[in-house]
Amino acid sequence: MALYKIEAIIKPFKLEEVKEALTEIGIAGLTVTEVKGFGRQKGHTEIYRGSEYTVDFLPKVKIEIVLTEEILPKATEAIIKSAKTGKIGDGKIFVLPVTEAIRIRTEEKGENAI
Amino acid sequence: MALYKIEAIIKPFKLEEVKEALTEIGIAGLTVTEVKGFGRQKGHTEIYRGSEYTVDFLPKVKIEIVLTEEILPKATEAIIKSAKTGKIGDGKIFVLPVTEAIRIRTEEKGENAI
Amino acid sequence: MALYKIEAIIKPFKLEEVKEALTEIGIAGLTVTEVKGFGRQKGHTEIYRGSEYTVDFLPKVKIEIVLTEEILPKATEAIIKSAKTGKIGDGKIFVLPVTEAIRIRTEEKGENAI
Ligand SMILES: Nc1ncnc2c1ncn2[C@@H]1O[C@H](COP(=O)(O)OP(=O)(O)OP(=O)(O)O)[C@@H](O)[C@H]1O
Ligand SMILES: Nc1ncnc2c1ncn2[C@@H]1O[C@H](COP(=O)(O)OP(=O)(O)OP(=O)(O)O)[C@@H](O)[C@H]1O
Ligand SMILES: Nc1ncnc2c1ncn2[C@@H]1O[C@H](COP(=O)(O)OP(=O)(O)OP(=O)(O)O)[C@@H](O)[C@H]1O
Ligand SMILES: [Mg+2]
Ligand SMILES: [Mg+2]
Ligand SMILES: [Mg+2]
Repeated sequence: MALYKIEAIIKPFKLEEVKEALTEIGIAGLTVTEVKGFGRQKGHTEIYRGSEYTVDFLPKVKIEIVLTEEILPKATEAIIKSAKTGKIGDGKIFVLPVTEAIRIRTEEKGENAI
Repeated sequence: MALYKIEAIIKPFKLEEVKEALTEIGIAGLTVTEVKGFGRQKGHTEIYRGSEYTVDFLPKVKIEIVLTEEILPKATEAIIKSAKTGKIGDGKIFVLPVTEAIRIRTEEKGENAI
Repeated sequence: MALYKIEAIIKPFKLEEVKEALTEIGIAGLTVTEVKGFGRQKGHTEIYRGSEYTVDFLPKVKIEIVLTEEILPKATEAIIKSAKTGKIGDGKIFVLPVTEAIRIRTEEKGENAI
């Protein structure tokens, strides 16, 4: 079965809620990175109205999950529901193809490694 | 329209210049991570001539941009021009396929989510 | 020749050993990120037996290597051998397709940029 990687960039204070939503649907592994970024508002108006000409980076959290195509729609739905505040800066979900997964300890491969 | 992700590893002091070059061509979102790495010189001669037998990690910045295939050539060109010093260690640009993008706040998908 | 990216999530104390195993087979570039994550044990029993209902993030290191399909099997083998302790939490290897690589300094492309 095809494997994919979700990369979700979310508001840092939403991490716990998103993690819980994902474990509830059976996601058994994920990786988190502290990042910074900007979207269409160029980082301004999310916090304060900055100069029109500067672009500010705001702290965000990136969640990465490698999963099967079967669970992918449920996982994106769980992220959308748990990460959304309705205000700008709620973040993005990107999906990338994955050609192989290996559990290092057991050398299991593919969906058995997820 | 097909979506791609650029991952560019650059010299940290070039971040502002690259960000400006990308916003000038209309890139409306990107994510930055602090990383460390080495290339063909194994981290040595970029700063000083280290032992031939050790490999050192140097601090770098990773920029990630999800974009349409239409803007991809312009974006790689903007990164090359703004990140290049002509000295070793200027970094790399990698391009990966992306199968979906979602704006969490609005649930817009595909190129409308970029 | 097709390009791929390995993303390996390993135990932090294994970084040096994995780096050496990879340089020994000729890998001439990689990028490292400090991350945190959990796998099937939800972060508990790797260190102590936590509450059944909480999920804990443990510090991990992510290694990214863009390489040709030719060297890919050797590289995954080198990572498995050098990263494995045989205990839970040894980590994962994921492989993703890469459509382009560019060395910024020289503008070389594809496998010449690796
Ligand atoms: N095209 C993109 N490529 C890479 N990262 C992106 C992209 N767009 C957004 N991001 C990341 O997602 C974070 C949140 O983006 P954000 O939610 O503000 O997007 P937006 O398009 O401005 O939507 P909104 O109008 O809801 O604010 C950014 O800080 C950045 O880290
Ligand atoms: N094959 C690779 N896979 C993953 N990351 C890489 C790879 N090659 C380089 N990098 C990342 O890019 C950074 C900069 O690499 P660098 O520009 O030194 O490449 P190089 O091939 O040695 O080119 P140059 O001869 O111009 O120095 C490294 O520190 C590392 O983080
Ligand atoms: N499906 C996944 N998606 C993204 N990251 C993952 C996934 N599974 C594991 N990881 C990352 O790899 C790290 C190590 O995982 P781990 O080795 O504990 O996996 P496991 O499946 O529990 O295997 P084991 O039973 O050997 O412990 C996690 O902390 C997390 O960062
Ligand atoms: Mg925004
Ligand atoms: Mg170099
Ligand atoms: Mg585990």
